[in-house]
Amino acid sequence: MTKITANNPDRKSWIQIGKDSDFPIQNIPFGIYSDKGTSPRTCVAIGNKIADLYELANRGYLDDLGITADDFKKPELNDLMKSGKMGMRKLRNRLADLFDTNTPDLQSKESDISAILKPQRSVTMHLPVRVGDYTDFYSSIEHATNIGTMFRDPKNALLPNWRHIPVAYHGRSSSIVPSGVAIHRPKGQTRPNPEEPPVFGPTKRLDFELELAFVTFDGKPMGDSISTEEADDYIFGMVLFNDWSARDIQKWEYVPLGPFLAKNFASSVSPWIVTLDALEPYRTLGPAQNPEVLPYLEFEGEKNIDINLEVAIDTGSGEETAICFSNYKYLYWTLNQQLAHHTVNGCNIRGGDMMASGTISGSKPTSFGSMLELSWSGSKPIKLADGTQRTFVNDGDTVIMRGHAMGNGVKIGFGEVRTKVLPAK
Amino acid sequence: MTKITANNPDRKSWIQIGKDSDFPIQNIPFGIYSDKGTSPRTCVAIGNKIADLYELANRGYLDDLGITADDFKKPELNDLMKSGKMGMRKLRNRLADLFDTNTPDLQSKESDISAILKPQRSVTMHLPVRVGDYTDFYSSIEHATNIGTMFRDPKNALLPNWRHIPVAYHGRSSSIVPSGVAIHRPKGQTRPNPEEPPVFGPTKRLDFELELAFVTFDGKPMGDSISTEEADDYIFGMVLFNDWSARDIQKWEYVPLGPFLAKNFASSVSPWIVTLDALEPYRTLGPAQNPEVLPYLEFEGEKNIDINLEVAIDTGSGEETAICFSNYKYLYWTLNQQLAHHTVNGCNIRGGDMMASGTISGSKPTSFGSMLELSWSGSKPIKLADGTQRTFVNDGDTVIMRGHAMGNGVKIGFGEVRTKVLPAK
Repeated sequence: MTKITANNPDRKSWIQIGKDSDFPIQNIPFGIYSDKGTSPRTCVAIGNKIADLYELANRGYLDDLGITADDFKKPELNDLMKSGKMGMRKLRNRLADLFDTNTPDLQSKESDISAILKPQRSVTMHLPVRVGDYTDFYSSIEHATNIGTMFRDPKNALLPNWRHIPVAYHGRSSSIVPSGVAIHRPKGQTRPNPEEPPVFGPTKRLDFELELAFVTFDGKPMGDSISTEEADDYIFGMVLFNDWSARDIQKWEYVPLGPFLAKNFASSVSPWIVTLDALEPYRTLGPAQNPEVLPYLEFEGEKNIDINLEVAIDTGSGEETAICFSNYKYLYWTLNQQLAHHTVNGCNIRGGDMMASGTISGSKPTSFGSMLELSWSGSKPIKLADGTQRTFVNDGDTVIMRGHAMGNGVKIGFGEVRTKVLPAK
Repeated sequence: MTKITANNPDRKSWIQIGKDSDFPIQNIPFGIYSDKGTSPRTCVAIGNKIADLYELANRGYLDDLGITADDFKKPELNDLMKSGKMGMRKLRNRLADLFDTNTPDLQSKESDISAILKPQRSVTMHLPVRVGDYTDFYSSIEHATNIGTMFRDPKNALLPNWRHIPVAYHGRSSSIVPSGVAIHRPKGQTRPNPEEPPVFGPTKRLDFELELAFVTFDGKPMGDSISTEEADDYIFGMVLFNDWSARDIQKWEYVPLGPFLAKNFASSVSPWIVTLDALEPYRTLGPAQNPEVLPYLEFEGEKNIDINLEVAIDTGSGEETAICFSNYKYLYWTLNQQLAHHTVNGCNIRGGDMMASGTISGSKPTSFGSMLELSWSGSKPIKLADGTQRTFVNDGDTVIMRGHAMGNGVKIGFGEVRTKVLPAK
């Protein structure tokens, strides 16, 4: 069992890092980048730079970790992640040491540094993993209550199974794209008037959903389960996740088998996998669970995580309006419970699977994690900085999500997921 | 546009093929095999043999097709399928020529033949493709009506959207396994008594679902759609698909986001992808669609396919009892409509995606494609040849699905998907 040494709040780096940077030496999130001369490969973020891990490995800085340099040269992190929780922890510990002011190795080698560090603004970030399967949970009690109130019956907003099961459904992995990739407004069937036949056209209720997704390591064979206690060992890290939704399509299609075309046209993720190791100092207690859960869902200790989240819209003016302030710690179900539930039937997981939280809403109206909730199904328009207002997302709008944990003078940030909406094709 | 020449019913092969074989020269389905000396690679079925396409290519028999020999040496068909509908058609046409009595090339080369042809019983068949995303439709009106009657309300069994939308949901790709791989009975939450809290344990209602799945080629970029007319060009072929289900888990979990743990513990597929080209002669008219569908779901010509299907159970006695006789042509929605609907919102598809039909039930009780329907929710036990009876699937039972199209003296068979059920771990 390797200890996490990278998180030490007293560490300083010889690399210049801004005070408000998402990526201090205590973070070191993993991603895949390319630039003009470089095909997609592994990197980490440090300050406003990326560090190319293939170049590091090639120069011997990552020796004795049981990872070959070629594993850093792949266009997805999946092969690298085969080294598992302890392998990735050792790697991140080593990187923190290399970037530390107290370690002379790399900081003294000017020519190595120039091959390894590049400005983030000069590179293109890609999807960090090949997503085998994508699952979306529904773990915010406030969101489930809001949706149940609007889609079904305010008196029975929360369905009978909700407090017993971390409810989830399978989503589409092919349409998960990284920050910066624009998406098209989807078309589909809706039935605005139940007395008339359904109609076809671009959605009139395009929405975002503010979520975080965790990325798994390879799991156990089919038929085996992962307990809440074991779950941390099978989770690599987390990304911001915008689960785009078309509410009018969803309303007409989702009974009885769940959302399908209302969701599978696109999901957008931030490019950096912030490791669960880096987030451990920010674990906290979640809401009390009542009634008691079944034994396979019980867990010990503080398993929620205190991560501040924000959604902003830029209508094209270049001026952002922050419209939602939420926190991952509001979730009723923890990631440990989510993974234990997902595998309790013997379902196997693979490295690179993404499991998203579901929309993260809090109890205050400004903490609701979707336009559907913020505008209360279109009845309360949201005023923006440029003088316009929105009930749902318009063509030309850019939606930006950001998140960070903070404590002991350390900020562990996620960067952002930024997506422009183009008209329907 | 390359014509299909492989289907000619008058073709005869110099390879000995039994009269009742699923794999005459007019079929030539694709798969992945391995044996003691061979790592997984591409093959086709012909009679009771497999033909190793890497060995064929290596000897120059597959030259001028724009496919390199190495593409046949991969453990999945995905890379080979990048040659697209026309590429795979040319390949299959060439193989039919090579196996034809009228072509001297291969049949005269004794030493080549012994390297290329191997008995099917001597090799292991694998999953033919790496499944990117798996979608399950719900396209049998008889099945949807039966399920609605049992799970919800007999008076409103078919939901209002069913005749307008080829309803579907996303499933789990990680747990799709080929014929021959045993599965474990899943555990999970159920709530047998709505007045009492839920309980945990192995499912008491393990079920199969008789389905066929089509396998896609790479599609268009995100944001684009595939029309019903274009759909055939994006479909490679079909496999038998057993969508294992746990009915008691399903009943408690599925509202409002659809089935999850009730399905994702395992799905079993037959190892041979029977090409849509080989099935073209068996296209037929499906049920009339009423009310009229929206324009994007309209299609011309006969687009259902006449494929006889059968499910049998062997309790371990070695004696099979056939318990279901159905036909793919019963489906209300065609595969062309399914693919057009799936992509109408801009959802992108990738080579190797699987889209299953949903349970294929007909109107007669003996044609119902699941135990839930055959035993009418457990109320009508099914008598088996060994004197026992079943309402759902027991530990130790083996479920076998088979299918074939037939006409002009030609039988296009799928082989089988055979799965033994082991006790919960």
